[in-house]
Amino acid sequence: MKIAYQGEPGAFSEAAARLVNADALLIPCRSFEDVFDTVKGGPANYGVLPIENSIGGSIHRNFDLLLEHELPIVGEVEQPVVHHLLAFPQTTMEQVRRIYSHPQALAQCDRFLRSLTGVEVIATYDTAGSAKLVADQQMKDAAAIASLRAAEVFGLKALRSSIQDYEHNVTRFLVIGRRPLSDAAPDKTTIVFTLPNEPGVLFKALSVFALRGIDLTKLESRPIPRRKWEYLFYADLAAARDELPCGRALAHLAEFAPSLRILGSYPSYKPATPVPDTTEAGASSATSSSRTRA
Amino acid sequence: MKIAYQGEPGAFSEAAARLVNADALLIPCRSFEDVFDTVKGGPANYGVLPIENSIGGSIHRNFDLLLEHELPIVGEVEQPVVHHLLAFPQTTMEQVRRIYSHPQALAQCDRFLRSLTGVEVIATYDTAGSAKLVADQQMKDAAAIASLRAAEVFGLKALRSSIQDYEHNVTRFLVIGRRPLSDAAPDKTTIVFTLPNEPGVLFKALSVFALRGIDLTKLESRPIPRRKWEYLFYADLAAARDELPCGRALAHLAEFAPSLRILGSYPSYKPATPVPDTTEAGASSATSSSRTRA
Repeated sequence: MKIAYQGEPGAFSEAAARLVNADALLIPCRSFEDVFDTVKGGPANYGVLPIENSIGGSIHRNFDLLLEHELPIVGEVEQPVVHHLLAFPQTTMEQVRRIYSHPQALAQCDRFLRSLTGVEVIATYDTAGSAKLVADQQMKDAAAIASLRAAEVFGLKALRSSIQDYEHNVTRFLVIGRRPLSDAAPDKTTIVFTLPNEPGVLFKALSVFALRGIDLTKLESRPIPRRKWEYLFYADLAAARDELPCGRALAHLAEFAPSLRILGSYPSYKPATPVPDTTEAGASSATSSSRTRA
Repeated sequence: MKIAYQGEPGAFSEAAARLVNADALLIPCRSFEDVFDTVKGGPANYGVLPIENSIGGSIHRNFDLLLEHELPIVGEVEQPVVHHLLAFPQTTMEQVRRIYSHPQALAQCDRFLRSLTGVEVIATYDTAGSAKLVADQQMKDAAAIASLRAAEVFGLKALRSSIQDYEHNVTRFLVIGRRPLSDAAPDKTTIVFTLPNEPGVLFKALSVFALRGIDLTKLESRPIPRRKWEYLFYADLAAARDELPCGRALAHLAEFAPSLRILGSYPSYKPATPVPDTTEAGASSATSSSRTRA
């Protein structure tokens, strides 16, 4: 199995690709577009794409790319995100004049970055790529925000650890590919649709699922570029496309939705080993690992 | 009237503040938090905050701050966004080695930036502030992405104009303050609520409005920090809080929503003069300026 991901070795996407299949050959790509191209034209069978972060919300660019390309979603994984400030072993905090990272990572470490003075914050296209930059260019007065694995890969050390604003920081990745990932039965379906500009129409759209007992695990609206304040809706349904009620609900929605596309029907993510609950009060929370349902 | 905004003179927020009241005294603030503080503790009566961009989507940070603070929304304005590459009059495109701007502006000019080679892209906290930086530090080999007004303010020129990826780029700003902005009657209400983790519950939430004929003009879900994959819902209702059906719908929602807050009830934005439609085909589009309704 060959899996394409965006970024350098040490990127969170690389860790997500390993979660998909620990033995797969991993193919780093420069951009999300390249991930699609590498799966479409070869040599990869699958690609992993970050789609949603528990703090920052959706990665809109990948919603757009899913729409532009014909590659279906065949799976999903969740990867915890822990950011570290990486620098050369000799570099001290006082010597750091520039910090490099991806804008999303910079935003997630906003509180830490605002606590610094006299430091220039520089946006790059990749967290691990920032670590590579600091290492390759022998920057003794700079640091990168990236994963511990990136420190290993590029011979840096963590000058500061766990510098993200919030502790519970998880990114959900989608797996795209032409064939199913495994024999596991699909139990989740992702769709995208538009609606006519009529009062009550979103309520009507949700009713086709609610009246058939189909749970929505996510609903996201995204502005349509070029059409001011018109929205695309992305929804995750807790059902396989092939189940009769789901098929009927989608046919019902298509009766009044000007456009409707099924982006994929796939097995939802189930962690291999149960993760211990680390809520600050130590109280176990039945809802903290499950989604708000619609 | 004194209006606080985030950024330097020349920022899009400053233009939005002028739309609120052309004669107001405008108070620049370093951060969105400072805008809230300046309105709360004086000297400003009102503050303007970007809340949603027609391309990039919501500015989540300001949703969070609205929740943290007790200042109500009292109005809204819409400001077109046109980005320019600003530099010293003598600087040529070939000399530009670094480009500074806010991450959101950088994202909106992604296609332009990717077309350049050998240029470092540096994230800052402000578009107009980037223009100020280039001007103050006499950078002859750098440029900033900001508004034409920022060029005027800081004595720069546009090396490239309208460099954003999409033409129809508009930001909606909210006005916060302790008193109503004018005598105009409110016709819009913004609420935020959470929902219990039960199947069909979002459908039920929307039904309290749909069954009373109240239109939703926007529905946004936002991850709750510290609670993985649980969401806050933000909704805009096309009704004043004081209208009887709206009051009843909100009381109905409060019966099963664990939390519900009214962030404000205010007059919706009506442009002073009708803006001519500039869709590329020249065709007038009845829906392009109105929202998808729920």
